[in-house]
Amino acid sequence: MAQISESSIFPAGEFQLDDTLKGIPGGTKPFPLSQIGQRGWNVLREDLPLPLMVLKRSVLHHNIRVMQSFLEEHGLSLAPHAKTHMSPQLVQLQLSSGAWAITAGNVSQVQVFRRFGVQRIILANQLVGRQNVRYVVEDLNADRGFEFFCLVDSIAGVRHLASLAEQFGLSRPIKVLLEGGYWGGRTGCRTLQQACEVVAELRNARRWLTLAGVEGFEGSISRDNPAEALQQVNHYLGFLKELLAALNPEDFAGVEEVIFSAGGSAYFDVVAKSFSALEFPVPKRIVLRSGCYLTHDSRMYAESAKEMLARGLRGPQLQAALEVWSYVQSIPEKGSAILSMGKRDCPYDYYLPTPLRRYRSDEDTLDLSACRITRLNDQHAYMSFPESLDLRFGDRIASGISHPCTAFDKWRFIPIVNDEYDVVDGLITHF
Amino acid sequence: MAQISESSIFPAGEFQLDDTLKGIPGGTKPFPLSQIGQRGWNVLREDLPLPLMVLKRSVLHHNIRVMQSFLEEHGLSLAPHAKTHMSPQLVQLQLSSGAWAITAGNVSQVQVFRRFGVQRIILANQLVGRQNVRYVVEDLNADRGFEFFCLVDSIAGVRHLASLAEQFGLSRPIKVLLEGGYWGGRTGCRTLQQACEVVAELRNARRWLTLAGVEGFEGSISRDNPAEALQQVNHYLGFLKELLAALNPEDFAGVEEVIFSAGGSAYFDVVAKSFSALEFPVPKRIVLRSGCYLTHDSRMYAESAKEMLARGLRGPQLQAALEVWSYVQSIPEKGSAILSMGKRDCPYDYYLPTPLRRYRSDEDTLDLSACRITRLNDQHAYMSFPESLDLRFGDRIASGISHPCTAFDKWRFIPIVNDEYDVVDGLITHF
Repeated sequence: MAQISESSIFPAGEFQLDDTLKGIPGGTKPFPLSQIGQRGWNVLREDLPLPLMVLKRSVLHHNIRVMQSFLEEHGLSLAPHAKTHMSPQLVQLQLSSGAWAITAGNVSQVQVFRRFGVQRIILANQLVGRQNVRYVVEDLNADRGFEFFCLVDSIAGVRHLASLAEQFGLSRPIKVLLEGGYWGGRTGCRTLQQACEVVAELRNARRWLTLAGVEGFEGSISRDNPAEALQQVNHYLGFLKELLAALNPEDFAGVEEVIFSAGGSAYFDVVAKSFSALEFPVPKRIVLRSGCYLTHDSRMYAESAKEMLARGLRGPQLQAALEVWSYVQSIPEKGSAILSMGKRDCPYDYYLPTPLRRYRSDEDTLDLSACRITRLNDQHAYMSFPESLDLRFGDRIASGISHPCTAFDKWRFIPIVNDEYDVVDGLITHF
Repeated sequence: MAQISESSIFPAGEFQLDDTLKGIPGGTKPFPLSQIGQRGWNVLREDLPLPLMVLKRSVLHHNIRVMQSFLEEHGLSLAPHAKTHMSPQLVQLQLSSGAWAITAGNVSQVQVFRRFGVQRIILANQLVGRQNVRYVVEDLNADRGFEFFCLVDSIAGVRHLASLAEQFGLSRPIKVLLEGGYWGGRTGCRTLQQACEVVAELRNARRWLTLAGVEGFEGSISRDNPAEALQQVNHYLGFLKELLAALNPEDFAGVEEVIFSAGGSAYFDVVAKSFSALEFPVPKRIVLRSGCYLTHDSRMYAESAKEMLARGLRGPQLQAALEVWSYVQSIPEKGSAILSMGKRDCPYDYYLPTPLRRYRSDEDTLDLSACRITRLNDQHAYMSFPESLDLRFGDRIASGISHPCTAFDKWRFIPIVNDEYDVVDGLITHF
């Protein structure tokens, strides 16, 4: 297991924080992020203004260890999807904790990760468009140490990519992963025949493109019915294996190992099991791309984790590392509180935030599991609570979030806290 | 009518753009925003990578003129809600176009606007929390020219504010607006009695707080049934007028004029009409706080505008100034395209984006009114289209957005384009 520094995850905190950043106290003069631990700020003492999203350091490191153990046990590589957090510091932490590569969702994200020194990137998407292809070509030409993968799922896509690669003078082939999809799903070839046609087209484009593996994403399968979803996921993973089996080892002549990749954050156990007995007569690397394991959450992935547990996943479990804090700013009717956070501060795409605990100035706390957030406006949350609950104007509410990807993108600055809520470090994000 | 510069809305473009910002071509070396018009970039020519959100300059200025005419005709003041865009350049544009004040949604936003020199701010929210109150107190003490308003709707809130104001040594009273609410709604006193109790408490806190007016927000009333919503809005505006009438002119002894404020972007016509014959024996200023008029949209406020038209609003209408551009990155099944934009790029809280036009490299365009975006993932959009429609991998799709507030917050950099899609200027945002 790679060494993890518990003391700091920020290697070069030159980024200047000032009070135009949400979460920084008004009047704070600019200072480098690397010095944030020396400010003496504590969230419980109200040293930082709310709303505020905090990242719990011990949970972050716990989750990294849980994932490391899982990967080691199953002989898997990880290319964490860093679109989740878009934070160079977390990218560094993931790489230093053994991640094999970093996954990006589009070329803008590749640009960010490249700026922060990442040398192996999977663009888990089609590479499309004049500027996007130009940039990748120029970067591949300029840096022989840069290893880059992207997806293809159509003849038209292969031609588009090859044509622009030629136009921009690509000096070595782009590695592409053949994407398998499922009916009614997102991108990816739906049938073996489609996939074989794409591979045939890749042979024509061999000068510009090298087939490097097979890829799929099971995470967009609807989980409304968990049992049905699991069946679909297994069926889909089976199709990806069929895809690989249908390919000729000679199609992979351009690479030293074949990449076989799937696995978001909801089914990495299923992917590991499904891919464990994979037979293919070429050295291969099985790559998971989970992004949300790092912080986990209090609802969407918390439910996935329960399902994994029910499926027999053993060992320590992932825990929720993110909390959004806000104030009770009004109790306009009995049992109804308005909180000072909204769509600008927390995710609302799958579930609304989960109230966890109430804090008051004398630091007495109260469990809020009987409370529920029922609606968000841009800057407000509506929380229903039992009338017997001791809640007042100015109380602080810590809420768990659902879906880390749409939590991180609401914050440019995120303080990292220890278990006493001292601010020990901080993140910046690049959305 | 105030003078509007059509040539530039950016007064001090020292902000450095580089390719870690979404929308800036990969490999671009840092350059000041003020020079963006000299890059010669054109969106139709694919000089910028997609996804990209563009702001159309002519429409922006058209909308400003439409709102100015409306305000002048009805004798109203505008404190535009700048939480919508959080862009200092648009704040400057609004102020130079006659806005009386700027509205903020929380203290973090106040900090941003203050940093960019705004001297009159309405915090359309309760002011709550140690750091938030401290900052406002210190800023009021430090700058006699800073005029600040916030809301109160409870005795507890008044006490909280007065207590912290005293603790932090406030040197002149904070101006507060009494907030009226409606049953089942957000913040605000539900009854005249509650409101009068708050005002009585304000008398006890006279040293720290000055009553400066009455405020409400009708925009959070559900518009599922437009006719019912209109009735509720009128009833609520009537309650706000009752509130004002119930107050004693002596309660306003601390101010030269009484502020009476309501009006988001969906009902400013109704507010103007309802408040037109307002009688109160003290000089008064009626303040609208619309934020979304500036860019309007292609769905949510487009529907509101139709309702305003039906209610008899005359003159030029607001138009949609924002478009999000993306690529067709896969056509995995007949009639189904996957676009290279997602929740990270466009609003999804009320409606999904509206496909407008398709562009191809030879610049032929196609109307997409028969297409529909049915789902968004973090980085993908699912678009259904008639099978007869000529659509290919790599085509560019311009989509309209719904709800400007959740469009702006997805972009740190937004190019401003002329009608030929030349990039003539650019915005930065401070979310």
